[in-house]
Amino acid sequence: MRLSRFHLHTTKETPADAELASHKLMLRAGMIRKLAAGLYTWSPLGLRVLRKVEAIVREEMDRAGAVELQLPTVQPRELWEETGRWEKFGGQLLKIKDRKEQEYCFSPTAEEAITDFARQELGSYKQLPVNFYQVHTKFRDEIRPRFGVMRAREFLMKDAYSFHASDEDLAREYENMKAAYTRIFTRLGLEFRAVQADSGAIGGDASQEFHVIADSGEDALAFSTGSDYAANVETAQAAAPGPRPDAAETMRKVETPVQKTCEDVAALLGIALQRTVKSVALVGADGFTLALVRGDHMVNEIKLRKVAGMADYRAATEAEILEHLGSEPGFLGPVAPARAIRVIADREVAALADFVVGANAPGFHLAGVNWGRDLAEADVVADIREVVAGDRAVDGGELRLARGIEVGHVFQLGRTYSQAMKFTVLDENGKAAVPAMGCYGIGVSRIVAAAIEQNHDEAGIIWPAPMAPWRVAICVINPKKDAAVDAAAGALLDELQAAGIDTVLDDRGLRPGAMFADIELIGIPHRVVVSERGLAAGTFEYRARTAAEAQSLDRGQLLEQLRGA
Amino acid sequence: MRLSRFHLHTTKETPADAELASHKLMLRAGMIRKLAAGLYTWSPLGLRVLRKVEAIVREEMDRAGAVELQLPTVQPRELWEETGRWEKFGGQLLKIKDRKEQEYCFSPTAEEAITDFARQELGSYKQLPVNFYQVHTKFRDEIRPRFGVMRAREFLMKDAYSFHASDEDLAREYENMKAAYTRIFTRLGLEFRAVQADSGAIGGDASQEFHVIADSGEDALAFSTGSDYAANVETAQAAAPGPRPDAAETMRKVETPVQKTCEDVAALLGIALQRTVKSVALVGADGFTLALVRGDHMVNEIKLRKVAGMADYRAATEAEILEHLGSEPGFLGPVAPARAIRVIADREVAALADFVVGANAPGFHLAGVNWGRDLAEADVVADIREVVAGDRAVDGGELRLARGIEVGHVFQLGRTYSQAMKFTVLDENGKAAVPAMGCYGIGVSRIVAAAIEQNHDEAGIIWPAPMAPWRVAICVINPKKDAAVDAAAGALLDELQAAGIDTVLDDRGLRPGAMFADIELIGIPHRVVVSERGLAAGTFEYRARTAAEAQSLDRGQLLEQLRGA
Repeated sequence: MRLSRFHLHTTKETPADAELASHKLMLRAGMIRKLAAGLYTWSPLGLRVLRKVEAIVREEMDRAGAVELQLPTVQPRELWEETGRWEKFGGQLLKIKDRKEQEYCFSPTAEEAITDFARQELGSYKQLPVNFYQVHTKFRDEIRPRFGVMRAREFLMKDAYSFHASDEDLAREYENMKAAYTRIFTRLGLEFRAVQADSGAIGGDASQEFHVIADSGEDALAFSTGSDYAANVETAQAAAPGPRPDAAETMRKVETPVQKTCEDVAALLGIALQRTVKSVALVGADGFTLALVRGDHMVNEIKLRKVAGMADYRAATEAEILEHLGSEPGFLGPVAPARAIRVIADREVAALADFVVGANAPGFHLAGVNWGRDLAEADVVADIREVVAGDRAVDGGELRLARGIEVGHVFQLGRTYSQAMKFTVLDENGKAAVPAMGCYGIGVSRIVAAAIEQNHDEAGIIWPAPMAPWRVAICVINPKKDAAVDAAAGALLDELQAAGIDTVLDDRGLRPGAMFADIELIGIPHRVVVSERGLAAGTFEYRARTAAEAQSLDRGQLLEQLRGA
Repeated sequence: MRLSRFHLHTTKETPADAELASHKLMLRAGMIRKLAAGLYTWSPLGLRVLRKVEAIVREEMDRAGAVELQLPTVQPRELWEETGRWEKFGGQLLKIKDRKEQEYCFSPTAEEAITDFARQELGSYKQLPVNFYQVHTKFRDEIRPRFGVMRAREFLMKDAYSFHASDEDLAREYENMKAAYTRIFTRLGLEFRAVQADSGAIGGDASQEFHVIADSGEDALAFSTGSDYAANVETAQAAAPGPRPDAAETMRKVETPVQKTCEDVAALLGIALQRTVKSVALVGADGFTLALVRGDHMVNEIKLRKVAGMADYRAATEAEILEHLGSEPGFLGPVAPARAIRVIADREVAALADFVVGANAPGFHLAGVNWGRDLAEADVVADIREVVAGDRAVDGGELRLARGIEVGHVFQLGRTYSQAMKFTVLDENGKAAVPAMGCYGIGVSRIVAAAIEQNHDEAGIIWPAPMAPWRVAICVINPKKDAAVDAAAGALLDELQAAGIDTVLDDRGLRPGAMFADIELIGIPHRVVVSERGLAAGTFEYRARTAAEAQSLDRGQLLEQLRGA
């Protein structure tokens, strides 16, 4: 491709409403242009990248045995009524009336439409399993569309839906899809993690999210160095603590006149923060409750709500605290409360000996406290804390924290949709059976933005090679003045293209500085400069996008260098 | 591809609402399934065909130098207000309100969106010309969606828009696009014609439609055997008639008591219908007018309205006829009217001598009438008739009539949109200039239906090879009973695929009759049967979809036969 016959339009300005690096860079590189809030035109440059992502997604879905089809984007209300989602989906569902006042929506996802297709097509267990997918335009009426294509209203999504005669077969396909997703994100050249979604209500492995790791990610993740374990920080688990040491100290009341936080108490007493215990006063279904976590830990609300009786807990009022503990906040603890209370101890707290808690008396804490001696064992011992970087992971590795951008989701739906839509097939015994379903999404257009969040520098985008609009850019110095230079560049272009290396020739005739800035901005992995001086010396200037310096290579060296591009 | 790992679901029933062969066959073959009125799911089988068409369209657009991008399907009202089309587009424009009550439409075409993109991107004549295209979902809210994907509401369209510094350059690109379209439809293996659209208001060659020829087509076309001239019957022109012969007869009044039609008069008088003249009484801007066409011809309203003063003509009332001609309809003529009238003669009528017209007296006609002797030369001589099969064409060939399905349109838009949207670039003199625009559409999904209309028989679809879901189908007899047969079929599949021949292996284990019926229904061009008996004899049964008989071929002959498939 010659750039003079393409349409590239970069800009220097950064629009005021662009906050994220990917949004700024996509606009500056001219990959996208805004048509209206959350609606973007993909320019020729942007579309090249989008199509490369799409092609890899499609190849791996095909390889995994999924079969592509295409559902309408406009879908009738009646269908969405069958599952109750016409109302339940909420404001993101863009509702449409046609000229006959019939109601439709612009598909934000397609469980209803695919189940309708399936119930027309599939009548027997012999036709199962099957996994249908599409790569198609979706619309979600975001209340505050932002971050460019990261959270656009109209976007490109790969959505797949599988149908199964048994839960076991669904679980098998779920693993198959996880493997396909791993291949996709690996092939795209992205650093990513498969993250356990909050699976409380659904169970085990029924849902995982795929995140591209990037500092700007919306989600805080924890992952292990010891395996591919990764989870949202809110649901991540660390390894259980070791056995509780024997008590070595006697309990004593210590004066902490103004020390209300664990940090202050630890400093005053000259002990490790890990030996202090935070008492959080709550009211659950079983009444007044103290939740205990170590001084260096935080209560994790999602985990705590899974403890029996705590699904709808609330913070205790000052009056309730005074009534049950006889003290004001800052000096609370589980030892000898004024009235009977429930105690929920985090596993790490239950494993402590000789720890420090509030004394339920303003200005005092208790040190050298031990379970079973100074107070009864806790009513509940559970994992109710947030993990922190450095925690030992369940697999023996170390937990690290990172931020991620969700780009994929795999989900064992079970029979929610097939049941609601009365979709049955005949089973081996000739009886009507409701198939189990899985769904598997990838935000194709979002991947483009996420890749930039993960891979950019001051000069612009740094594409992973498989996503780059072109792998190699040939920059010609003064093509219009020097026909020999232009011809040499053209010959190199032909040679690289013939070798299957997707190459662009910048023959626009820009000054070298402006040309190099464009090529860096749009993130081409390899740059070759063809100049009169180089030709005279028989050399080409080569520079990798990530290299600090350019190299002078002869033709053989250059081709060797680019062969793997 | 093994069919057991695909999803093929054919049906025997023909739905009641399916009228066209393509609609019936696409449903029977399971290429599409209806989701709602005018909304269809493309099944895996259907999508394979759609993608093949899409790929050829894309390749030829790229080859022609157009650059692909993608515009949002949802577009804001403000944009459509700029050209006045928010109102003018009419009921086909699907209007949408988002959660903030902002108004949008689902793009039925994209002149506004592309011009908005262009005015953000293009600032100088140096960036011209450029031709942007996309292949994307469109929506037209048809009042009566029908014929399956032939006239669906949601459909796949290739739309291209070019921008130019001059009209000459627009005309050049227009020819470039016509050539690309010709390559596209030729490569698709379709019989088609480029047809001059009604170009009255726009001029010369400013608009052409591409039609696939099919008996069921909505449009009546005339085309010449002498060149690639083709036009809608309503605008088609025949060659001008030769010079008028000398008068040979004297005018005489003949009795035609009940003969009101030219046919009846010609029969009564024993003369050729071509010598009779039909007088059509009209009122135009210049008052009462007789339009004259030969008895074997029909007035063409579109042509007639282009005659000065006739743009808004209407039929004359009986009272007006009586007032001007002194007669009732059936016996009208241009000779000696009661009052002054305007006479518009078709070119063929003006070239007649010794012709027959009504005598403006009930029960009488005039025979042997001659221009310039029995009545003054006509006020206007023009081509105002519809062409008929067998007419001599302008190029010397013969005009034939056919029916066509419009699948493409090329159009020199000029500056209508760029002007309305205040899009200017700086010209060579640094002055703001409004670029000229062209637009070029192809109904990608409609092509699939049109191809079937043109190519089918009792047994099903007959795909032109480039559009076929697979070029070759290997049918295995009893694959589950006989592992050797299955292995032989698998080896043949691998060999054909390796040779680049898109092949499917029907290993579903159906009875031969049902399997062959499916393969014929879905229109696979070449069928190979692998059976135990064949293997024993070292032969394969081969049959082309269009052949009456199967042949028994050895492996070498078979591969030779399929090499070009």
